[in-house]
Amino acid sequence: MKCSICNRKAVYFQRHSNRHLCRRHFIEDFERRVKIAVRKHKMIENDDRIAIALSGGKDSVTLTFALSKLYGKRRNLEFIAITIDEGIEGYRPPTVEIARKITKELGIEHVVVSFKENFGMTLDEMVRRGDKKPCTYCGVFRKYLLNKTAREIGANKLATGHNLDDETQTILLNFLNADIERLARLTPQRVQEGLVMRIKPFKEVYEKEVVVYGLLHKLPLTFDECPYSYFPVRTSVRDFLYDFENKYPGRKYSVLRAFEKLEPCLRQLYPQIKLNMCEKCGEPTPRKICQACRLLDELNP
Amino acid sequence: MKCSICNRKAVYFQRHSNRHLCRRHFIEDFERRVKIAVRKHKMIENDDRIAIALSGGKDSVTLTFALSKLYGKRRNLEFIAITIDEGIEGYRPPTVEIARKITKELGIEHVVVSFKENFGMTLDEMVRRGDKKPCTYCGVFRKYLLNKTAREIGANKLATGHNLDDETQTILLNFLNADIERLARLTPQRVQEGLVMRIKPFKEVYEKEVVVYGLLHKLPLTFDECPYSYFPVRTSVRDFLYDFENKYPGRKYSVLRAFEKLEPCLRQLYPQIKLNMCEKCGEPTPRKICQACRLLDELNP
Repeated sequence: MKCSICNRKAVYFQRHSNRHLCRRHFIEDFERRVKIAVRKHKMIENDDRIAIALSGGKDSVTLTFALSKLYGKRRNLEFIAITIDEGIEGYRPPTVEIARKITKELGIEHVVVSFKENFGMTLDEMVRRGDKKPCTYCGVFRKYLLNKTAREIGANKLATGHNLDDETQTILLNFLNADIERLARLTPQRVQEGLVMRIKPFKEVYEKEVVVYGLLHKLPLTFDECPYSYFPVRTSVRDFLYDFENKYPGRKYSVLRAFEKLEPCLRQLYPQIKLNMCEKCGEPTPRKICQACRLLDELNP
Repeated sequence: MKCSICNRKAVYFQRHSNRHLCRRHFIEDFERRVKIAVRKHKMIENDDRIAIALSGGKDSVTLTFALSKLYGKRRNLEFIAITIDEGIEGYRPPTVEIARKITKELGIEHVVVSFKENFGMTLDEMVRRGDKKPCTYCGVFRKYLLNKTAREIGANKLATGHNLDDETQTILLNFLNADIERLARLTPQRVQEGLVMRIKPFKEVYEKEVVVYGLLHKLPLTFDECPYSYFPVRTSVRDFLYDFENKYPGRKYSVLRAFEKLEPCLRQLYPQIKLNMCEKCGEPTPRKICQACRLLDELNP
């Protein structure tokens, strides 16, 4: 197959635009869409110090590379990668190594913080000790550490590798759960004390394209899934969206646009909550004691 | 299996409530939910003259029966059934007969109006003559005739057989199409000149339950599908919702609740358009010439 733009050998068929793309034009198109999303949501601005949530998985490795390639030469911008080592035996150590390797190659500052140092135990230990699902502990403590670390190293934004597939799954899942409040939380946040603003530069590119972009740049991508990963409802939604996109290419963009059209009124229905500082640890929380401190209390009775 | 309420023989397993129900308790539960929906949305009030859109298919036959059973004895309420004969050879004549039969049995006034008399040709002829899809002609002309006939016979409301499955499919379909304007049109309408308010008494009961309710009352139900019926995207959405409901019973209610939570903001984003009277036929339309007159012009060049 030949590139629909230049007639060179195609490496990718972009179904939603019905185009075959060669290496060069695929990369150009991918980077253009990342830059458009970044501009549209003002994700990256002058004098930003941006923390990158780098797990070492395929999305975050590609994100780190892409941000470095597209924005790394700007003098008034800084990137620092943060890797959270949850302590998941067998699964996490290799990706921490990948994270070290890629940041070294790209010349990006890199910080590794672990559950063990910060909470006194690994995720594996939490799971053995507590009665909650692994994803509950991981979700709460990982977000907690990412925000805290980003803030402590002076970052004003925190970039995550969420792509179009992730975003649309979350949107549809919240809708199907009738959880419109959680849907509202996906709208851009107002800056609040203690909370580092999250940005998602890949939110307008398909997961598949993130992988292809990473492979074309010979990045060290791993496709291992977390052994604890268990989201049956999300999996149903993911499979449906996959089939639906397959039959009617471009529909994932429709889901994102549907959400964007609703944005102005979502914030009106569910205004952003003014956060307090946790009475125990000082981190931002809508309650008196943050969720991380409450889970820790349960784990250390 | 025994009824979860009274221990008699169960005729139905209601997955979303995890109950087995005997004939009596199934019917009681079904009618209760219809009455709750009717009250919640003020669908039926004193001094209403309600037209029932009775195609003769399973949903509308059951609706006609249920409305007659639940509200037929009220002195300050009137029901009149309207059947639209689109002129679909082989498919429509038997259901028109069913409509005549059931209205006669229930003692409900019945009006049959046809595409042929009103537009000079049957749907079959339109399809042969024009270049639009059958569902385009049918959708426009059927709604046109239902509204016009209901108004002319003095009805102030028009009841349709849409059930929970139909409603949730439409909601999700519009969302997935990013057609938030069409989604907004599903919110309760403001009364407008020339437009008879549509009500959907079955919107909170599953399609399957409508069928069971009809069968338990030995109603003449047909399960034939219109030969022109072709909605591939809707079918994908229907199948997904079916699977999803099957895995996580009650999720169709979640979709309806999600929509209800969004209602206030939908109407804010897309306020209801003030309708004009069509310059050709006098029927209400958002444009100068209504869609029916425009299609007729195309069909009669």
